[in-house]
Amino acid sequence: MMKVVSSSQLPRGNPRVARTRANVLAVARGLLPEVGVDGMTYSLLAQESGVTRQTLYRHWPTRGALLFDVILHGPEVGYPEQGTDVRTVAVAWLRSLRAGLSDPATRAAVLAVTARADHDQESARALVQVGVDRHAALNQLLLPSGRQLTADQYTLLYSPVMCRLFLELREVSDEFVDTVVDQWLATL
Amino acid sequence: MMKVVSSSQLPRGNPRVARTRANVLAVARGLLPEVGVDGMTYSLLAQESGVTRQTLYRHWPTRGALLFDVILHGPEVGYPEQGTDVRTVAVAWLRSLRAGLSDPATRAAVLAVTARADHDQESARALVQVGVDRHAALNQLLLPSGRQLTADQYTLLYSPVMCRLFLELREVSDEFVDTVVDQWLATL
Repeated sequence: MMKVVSSSQLPRGNPRVARTRANVLAVARGLLPEVGVDGMTYSLLAQESGVTRQTLYRHWPTRGALLFDVILHGPEVGYPEQGTDVRTVAVAWLRSLRAGLSDPATRAAVLAVTARADHDQESARALVQVGVDRHAALNQLLLPSGRQLTADQYTLLYSPVMCRLFLELREVSDEFVDTVVDQWLATL
Repeated sequence: MMKVVSSSQLPRGNPRVARTRANVLAVARGLLPEVGVDGMTYSLLAQESGVTRQTLYRHWPTRGALLFDVILHGPEVGYPEQGTDVRTVAVAWLRSLRAGLSDPATRAAVLAVTARADHDQESARALVQVGVDRHAALNQLLLPSGRQLTADQYTLLYSPVMCRLFLELREVSDEFVDTVVDQWLATL
């Protein structure tokens, strides 16, 4: 089975650059639930992470790009493996989504970016990009199954988990994940 | 067919009281997309709607209660009718949801309440209450069909529309509504 690149792995290359990125992202993730997106200015982030604002802009030319990385490069939550069985991959995917969104910084970033997307182009771009990236990542995991999901199919799979967490403020149980995947598979 | 009470009808009773409520809600809906939830204080709302803060507190003891009404008492968008056919009612429900969320004040209120629910009890209560209220309202429409939806079934129905609108920032087409309902019915 092919090794899949986890969303939370940092880019290779110059180790000092990679360390700087990882450090800044960790600081940003710590700050976000406290100060919110509006409060997390590049000035504050530079001060707290001990790099210059110029360095921040070199890594993340827009705050949308930074928020994108904050959302996707969270703590390691057990990234799912590729597989031949669509059900197995889909269940693992939704459990991984649930785990990722149990992290306060990821939660805060997703909520903030979503709320701002109506009036802020950078947030809108980050939000759409996260969705496109995750859809592609799931299709990558599904390669051995021979099945690739359309945008509609992807939406139907992840939506109930997002709404249960963010709108209903309820736990996502293993049973709920199974129910979602069962219904989803019925018409796939 | 029984007449169904629309979510946007105002309470009957004293007409002056009803007028005051309707007026304040209209002002609140106008302010919200401009000033946000944080900016929409009872002081500002009292000033803009020409009533005292005491009157506001009498009608809405908490801002959560006010936000609940702002979300649910939007412009009339064609509230669905009761029906014997589950598919017909479900399609009408999702189209009505789409129409309601195309209103900027409703959108702004839903987004703000969702983003705040993580750290603000009032917003969390308003958000959960909206969901419970809508689930009950849909079951009311489904009475003639003899079918009543569980919480899981309700989540599976509305979630894809919410995520398409608020996370993917895409239009909800009639075809997408049909796709959602078809899949949903397959395992109902």
